[in-house]
Amino acid sequence: MSKRDFLALEDLSAAELEGLLALAARVKRGEISGGLEKKVLAMVFMDPSLRTRTSFETAMFLHGGHAVVLEPGKGSWTLETEPGAVMDGASVEHIVDAARVLGRYADALGVRAFPRGDDWAVARRDAIINTFAQHCDKPVINLESARRHPCQALADAMTLREKLGQVEGKRFVLTWAWHPKALPTAVPASAALAAARLGMEIVIARPEGYELDPEDTALIRKTAQQAGGELVHIINDPDDALVGADAVYVKSWGSVKLYGKPEEEAEWRAGLRDWRLTPSRLRSTRGGKGIVMHCLPVRRNVEIDDKVLDGPNSVVVDQAENRLHAQRALLLELIGSGVKSESEK
Amino acid sequence: MSKRDFLALEDLSAAELEGLLALAARVKRGEISGGLEKKVLAMVFMDPSLRTRTSFETAMFLHGGHAVVLEPGKGSWTLETEPGAVMDGASVEHIVDAARVLGRYADALGVRAFPRGDDWAVARRDAIINTFAQHCDKPVINLESARRHPCQALADAMTLREKLGQVEGKRFVLTWAWHPKALPTAVPASAALAAARLGMEIVIARPEGYELDPEDTALIRKTAQQAGGELVHIINDPDDALVGADAVYVKSWGSVKLYGKPEEEAEWRAGLRDWRLTPSRLRSTRGGKGIVMHCLPVRRNVEIDDKVLDGPNSVVVDQAENRLHAQRALLLELIGSGVKSESEK
Amino acid sequence: MSKRDFLALEDLSAAELEGLLALAARVKRGEISGGLEKKVLAMVFMDPSLRTRTSFETAMFLHGGHAVVLEPGKGSWTLETEPGAVMDGASVEHIVDAARVLGRYADALGVRAFPRGDDWAVARRDAIINTFAQHCDKPVINLESARRHPCQALADAMTLREKLGQVEGKRFVLTWAWHPKALPTAVPASAALAAARLGMEIVIARPEGYELDPEDTALIRKTAQQAGGELVHIINDPDDALVGADAVYVKSWGSVKLYGKPEEEAEWRAGLRDWRLTPSRLRSTRGGKGIVMHCLPVRRNVEIDDKVLDGPNSVVVDQAENRLHAQRALLLELIGSGVKSESEK
Repeated sequence: MSKRDFLALEDLSAAELEGLLALAARVKRGEISGGLEKKVLAMVFMDPSLRTRTSFETAMFLHGGHAVVLEPGKGSWTLETEPGAVMDGASVEHIVDAARVLGRYADALGVRAFPRGDDWAVARRDAIINTFAQHCDKPVINLESARRHPCQALADAMTLREKLGQVEGKRFVLTWAWHPKALPTAVPASAALAAARLGMEIVIARPEGYELDPEDTALIRKTAQQAGGELVHIINDPDDALVGADAVYVKSWGSVKLYGKPEEEAEWRAGLRDWRLTPSRLRSTRGGKGIVMHCLPVRRNVEIDDKVLDGPNSVVVDQAENRLHAQRALLLELIGSGVKSESEK
Repeated sequence: MSKRDFLALEDLSAAELEGLLALAARVKRGEISGGLEKKVLAMVFMDPSLRTRTSFETAMFLHGGHAVVLEPGKGSWTLETEPGAVMDGASVEHIVDAARVLGRYADALGVRAFPRGDDWAVARRDAIINTFAQHCDKPVINLESARRHPCQALADAMTLREKLGQVEGKRFVLTWAWHPKALPTAVPASAALAAARLGMEIVIARPEGYELDPEDTALIRKTAQQAGGELVHIINDPDDALVGADAVYVKSWGSVKLYGKPEEEAEWRAGLRDWRLTPSRLRSTRGGKGIVMHCLPVRRNVEIDDKVLDGPNSVVVDQAENRLHAQRALLLELIGSGVKSESEK
Repeated sequence: MSKRDFLALEDLSAAELEGLLALAARVKRGEISGGLEKKVLAMVFMDPSLRTRTSFETAMFLHGGHAVVLEPGKGSWTLETEPGAVMDGASVEHIVDAARVLGRYADALGVRAFPRGDDWAVARRDAIINTFAQHCDKPVINLESARRHPCQALADAMTLREKLGQVEGKRFVLTWAWHPKALPTAVPASAALAAARLGMEIVIARPEGYELDPEDTALIRKTAQQAGGELVHIINDPDDALVGADAVYVKSWGSVKLYGKPEEEAEWRAGLRDWRLTPSRLRSTRGGKGIVMHCLPVRRNVEIDDKVLDGPNSVVVDQAENRLHAQRALLLELIGSGVKSESEK
């Protein structure tokens, strides 16, 4: 029996993505009941979570299923990631075995693993999630890896449709923001890919040194073009960036070039605190009405000012809510026992 | 749509409290089935828990619902509490956003946050729980804050009724006990308020320096008077305290006056190890039959002797069990879809 | 009302063990539905877990129940184990009270507590699990103690039957393996007892200094004899050990003799890295087809080589899966409301 993982948005065909977004909208309107009875999702968190954990646990429960939450190194064993490792160190269990065993207990496996180590050439391979996917014979869902956060991307696409209606050709600005830490690029890459899939005009604004992984940039460009949109400019100025934006996606991320050189990266980043979404910058969006998105958690008054987050342009809470509905649709598609309308119950 | 929080026992009118206690008794007798189907309670624990967590998780499950347990700083993000904070430090997410988002996933939110910082004037404002309540559009339940533990108070009231029958005018003695740490005053204040609501005669026994927050003492006095009881004496002697007691509530708490001065407080407390409930002291309760209450966890042979805890006067385990039933009633009232008798299923 | 604990496999009569194994096989074939509706299992983990936690949580859910997971010292209070302790130190709650209270919330209690302290004469008493069992008025299930891991033993017995068919008289080899840490003897003792209960010929292979607790060895011998098998040899050579084996159970454990002397034990262990199951050693099993068992987590290329674990002889993943089915049967027997066939639903 073949199984279907969900490791990146680009795993979905255009028809599949449309199907998922349509199902998510129906789920949100309360039209779908049950479908996950006796189903178990095991979630392995190698990094913290609030939204992902709560929304998946709730999603499983609302449709009759159950989610188990495992935190290796805390309540669970520390996992080894290297193939062929001679395991005489601190790691107690190999991912290979954890993946196989969890596949026997659960119907699907969710894995969160942020980038590790000091070599981007290694981290960008997403070895942890890929090893889980390779060795687990049940669907594996990426709950955020070094490269991708596809569940966030699904919610982002759903939110863009909900808020902007016909999105094709509208302008999506992904703008870098300052942050005290060098964060992963999974969310910005995934969000831009989501907007690209919807046929939007993509602008990526970031300071010098904060280019995304070149392969991701190329994929965003190609994806936009295929969907009838484009990747217009990649500019270097936090003010120009927002002109005419229909949607502004604020996100901080660390320099891929300086990955593994934290002091150098921090020094480079130090001069960039001005990259912050302020009320005055917001006014340059289309008619001053561009929606403001963020995956959360957000550093208030560092990435985005309180006035923006608490103002009428912000859709960040709706966006977070859509995690729940997008994931309900995803789970129903991946492991559901057939979707029933609420009226057919 | 308005929502109803449960932050303190005093939020309930006399009729509401009676209603809750009556429902809790029916729940305990097994008369109520279901009522929380498809409902989710998200619990945010900033401090450890055994009873609260297990009893709420069980309560939700028994009526068809589900509880999600979040521990910020462990499996979840560290939360910021200051309004308007420029979040360039260690805190990853602001309570404002966590409250809003959790309100989208869950039908109610429970929050535990013990007092923090070294200034009682600040800690006593209960900013964490109040900020959650202000920004979450679903009911927020206090799972113990700096000032109140109303779920414990509900269980305490239920236990007093169960064990003493007609409680009006009977004597409730809250007695301080020594403990190696300076603990919060939420439980003693809440327990005394619960007994006061029931119209009991309240005695608070504690060493000099261990007065409760003056506003709490005033509220206990006023509450007792309104219910036909009184706050009789606040005495300074662990032996005299128990004379004629129908119920003895043993609890340690830290000095409010010396809050934020741990060395000074510890020195003051050092001489007070004699404040401990012993079998001989128990004999001075009414007919030697006064019931012994404690919210647990209890330091055995430090707050209360083994012989008392394991003897016939102790009702601490029944009291802990009543947490479950009181909270089932509370959840049914706050977010239940209508109470069905077991026979109507 | 009497209650039934499950602290060790030897608690079960021959008929009870057969009943459990038969029920586990039916459960695995999908013949049993429901039976744990409105039932709660509270699991107290004093040590980490992946399989035990996930399989029990899944087991409860699949039959309509719910498992609560508590981790004292992390999300829950630190527990005191000494009877009569004057609790003025770091421990916040006594097991006596935790056991009593959890027995009010839950229908059964699971407890995991590895050996502690530096005196085997003390650790071997399994005080933690026994204190829980003594003071909780609901069934207590041993999730692995210093001495026993009976849920693993059940899954081991189920796996041996499944893979070897008629097991009486077949050869079960428990072989020690090197490991960077001195591990508990609960699994090897329990696995050998399980095989002994099935009437197998037991071989225990281990280096000098790694004898099991003498009482356990005596019990294994007596159990094997009563079931028509025997404890043949206890040999000192990792190659000879496997000759003619139908099943090889690989496991590392620490020296009981040097318990509490970690430096001495580590020095003694240092020369024993050759005790590892390699493909060439596997060839000396009966027809080269001996099955390879391990309770997991396994140190790859330290206890067992990748080629063995990933090869056709390994049954470790089936063995882990059987934890789930064995525990479903156990829970149905201990707290189930009556077993229904799937067809009778």
